[in-house]
Amino acid sequence: MNLILLFQDDFKDRKRVCLQGRRLEHVLNVHRASAGDKLCVGLLNGRIGIGTGTVTRLDNQMLEMDVAFDRDPPAPLELTLMLALPRPIVLKRVLLSISSMGVKRIFLINSRRVEKSYWNSPALEEEKIREQLVLGLEQARDTVLPDVWLRPKFKPFVEDELPGLIKGTMPIVAHPDAIEPCPRHAGCAVTLAIGPEGGFIPYEVEMLEACGFKAVHLGERILRVETAVPVLLSRLF
Amino acid sequence: MNLILLFQDDFKDRKRVCLQGRRLEHVLNVHRASAGDKLCVGLLNGRIGIGTGTVTRLDNQMLEMDVAFDRDPPAPLELTLMLALPRPIVLKRVLLSISSMGVKRIFLINSRRVEKSYWNSPALEEEKIREQLVLGLEQARDTVLPDVWLRPKFKPFVEDELPGLIKGTMPIVAHPDAIEPCPRHAGCAVTLAIGPEGGFIPYEVEMLEACGFKAVHLGERILRVETAVPVLLSRLF
Repeated sequence: MNLILLFQDDFKDRKRVCLQGRRLEHVLNVHRASAGDKLCVGLLNGRIGIGTGTVTRLDNQMLEMDVAFDRDPPAPLELTLMLALPRPIVLKRVLLSISSMGVKRIFLINSRRVEKSYWNSPALEEEKIREQLVLGLEQARDTVLPDVWLRPKFKPFVEDELPGLIKGTMPIVAHPDAIEPCPRHAGCAVTLAIGPEGGFIPYEVEMLEACGFKAVHLGERILRVETAVPVLLSRLF
Repeated sequence: MNLILLFQDDFKDRKRVCLQGRRLEHVLNVHRASAGDKLCVGLLNGRIGIGTGTVTRLDNQMLEMDVAFDRDPPAPLELTLMLALPRPIVLKRVLLSISSMGVKRIFLINSRRVEKSYWNSPALEEEKIREQLVLGLEQARDTVLPDVWLRPKFKPFVEDELPGLIKGTMPIVAHPDAIEPCPRHAGCAVTLAIGPEGGFIPYEVEMLEACGFKAVHLGERILRVETAVPVLLSRLF
């Protein structure tokens, strides 16, 4: 937790917040802070302050701080990410990771090789998704909560919604069999589709290509989704 | 498992292998292969064959294949990675991930902010480390097992061993407070040091700088080690 993310409910008055639960425990046990210490704070979807949260009370019951914000959060990535729904345990890690990298628009999509049972996982509950996104923001000192949309039907999503989504962006799909390598430093907004373990099936790649997507590869090595995502984002931005 | 990694012990004769245990189960339950199918195979530290392993027998007892190899494994990264020992659960994932990306020289090093108990973790046993490295090779269709060295004492490692290790490479240390950004596409061999959660302490960065390392940052966002490593490697290579 490199930044303590604050919500409107945390405010006792205009400048003072009062925290319990997870954030209190973290500041007690990991930061090992005490009264007078200055911490990094940020307001959900708002500004941040590096070392502008002054601890006024800290004990097992409560963390009280006077807070101020002095700068904008880091710039978001100009990216819409379409990710074939991964296994629930991988999804959790990937959501945290992409939230920390500054992705703000995430579509979890279906694909033939996504196991149907994944769509019934508790990891897809709004609260669980939000939990990982918040952990990612706290890690990266960001405040802007990403939007996550679930699209459990591939064909209607690609046919009806995708043409509008990709307007003004470079639409690419990561595919091991592609001929072209993934571009370095796109220099523009990107829509990036990433398949499941085993990849999109040829029919799905063809549908994406018909919609305007270019298939690109990352070299000979086939990477797990949790490795491929940071590799792709680091290369594109 | 995008490639079945074979060891000398697996060979019944010059061309035929006989597998049980984890690899048998994976081919039965995930690949759902049957006799006549052609699988990807690779010989430990040797050549690979994409679709050149022909299943001759497959049942609950045994997988038998006739194998041939027709190409070299993917090129390794020209990198020596020095990683402050992460939490055991993170270590497992990071070893798999860096093995899949083609890192072949890994030093797990100490730092003030590495918890002492991590050095006693069973995750550091030779067999456990090898397990994750093999999973990474199978993922990426590689065969060349990385070398992993443990260096639980920072100062003697940096003073006595590091000057020799970095010869002929660009030595850099990832550090959030650095002024220069991490270079894109190094174009040469690199020695890369990555600190623990919370970063190297100033004294450690100074020692690395005195040894010839340049401190570089990755932007405003602070990333977890499992995200930072693929981001850094993707940027450098």
